[in-house]
Amino acid sequence: MTDVEQPTGQTTTAPGDALELLGLVAYTELASFGRLAGDAAHAPTLRQRQALSRMAAAMLERQETVLGRIAELGGDPETCMASFDGLFDDFDARTRPSTWWEGILKGYVGQGVADDFCLLAAGALDERSRDVVVGSLTTDAPADRSAPVIADAATADPVLAARLALWGRRLVGEALGVVGVALSAHPALGRLVAEAGREAGAAPEPGSTQSWVFARLTAEHTRRMDRLGLAA
Amino acid sequence: MTDVEQPTGQTTTAPGDALELLGLVAYTELASFGRLAGDAAHAPTLRQRQALSRMAAAMLERQETVLGRIAELGGDPETCMASFDGLFDDFDARTRPSTWWEGILKGYVGQGVADDFCLLAAGALDERSRDVVVGSLTTDAPADRSAPVIADAATADPVLAARLALWGRRLVGEALGVVGVALSAHPALGRLVAEAGREAGAAPEPGSTQSWVFARLTAEHTRRMDRLGLAA
Repeated sequence: MTDVEQPTGQTTTAPGDALELLGLVAYTELASFGRLAGDAAHAPTLRQRQALSRMAAAMLERQETVLGRIAELGGDPETCMASFDGLFDDFDARTRPSTWWEGILKGYVGQGVADDFCLLAAGALDERSRDVVVGSLTTDAPADRSAPVIADAATADPVLAARLALWGRRLVGEALGVVGVALSAHPALGRLVAEAGREAGAAPEPGSTQSWVFARLTAEHTRRMDRLGLAA
Repeated sequence: MTDVEQPTGQTTTAPGDALELLGLVAYTELASFGRLAGDAAHAPTLRQRQALSRMAAAMLERQETVLGRIAELGGDPETCMASFDGLFDDFDARTRPSTWWEGILKGYVGQGVADDFCLLAAGALDERSRDVVVGSLTTDAPADRSAPVIADAATADPVLAARLALWGRRLVGEALGVVGVALSAHPALGRLVAEAGREAGAAPEPGSTQSWVFARLTAEHTRRMDRLGLAA
């Protein structure tokens, strides 16, 4: 799909494609920072406000490693992010949480899908870039912290659990919509996930990359909701 | 004013008073984090959004040194902050910015007054606590970054400059109101600024601590507005 030789690394991924994914990861982390900080501002207790603020700050610190890798590859961090500017606006407008819990689940589901997509595509990156993306998205992921909190609340309150299960289905549908938009607007991302699939020995059929990606992301989402004890 | 002996440090400040000020500093930084992150979310460009998010994250990192000092002195960081919870709610409700520039100036003026008050009171702390407060409030202060941005915009647009000058006077009045509330609700803060004043050889008359503090803060505010080229 690309005829540009990759000077370093084991894959044939074009450097431009790597920069595009790194830009998406960095932009996603900037957006997550804003969402976590917003959740913090509306947290019911000072303890949660402090904890969510801390998670937000740590998220932005991890983003620096991604911005640093973009610069190492000769890219401009802001230009790479700019092509994704506004990517989540429609998603946000369609999924305004009406309660604190809906907001927390939105972060868990929305960021989960975004992270899974980026991790999937990262399989096609050179080793160093892949390590940066994986480290940045999986170290101290806020989801690891919010999962037990949501699970406990859902166990204690079956009505809340039923509402959140419904909300989770709504969220994952909208999140997959964002992935579809990103794939059609950024062909580089489609090349990366197809290449990553081939390397993992699970090659999507030509022309069916998007449905292969959706199946993978939906399976991960189901596991994620299982961890909360909620029906996906 | 206190008969508790301070085991370390050069002052006679009671440890409880130190914890109270450290709690205020930490709470102020948590609030500034939220404000900066909120400004970031509404920034007109991705570059400003990234820059403001970075400032917010750095603010919370500096807050950790204050929380660490609270723990060293045997205090509970959240309990120390909790007694100030909601301190800025009234200020925020009364000074909702109607434009991006008003929001930026609000941060510059409001945080400037809060920082100056904390720095004034910190003069009465033991040396280690004072160093922590001064380091935390003056290293990479967001005001150092926003000042030239506001000054340039005001120079280029006299109508904006006139509006911001007016807005600045409104802000400082409301900010001094917050200081007055904090002083009456937290006698420890009054003891600290009075003690700091005595140590600096500029002792406020007994019973006139608040007006002495207001005079000092107003003078600093005037200097701060001068740096923007705006009339205080």
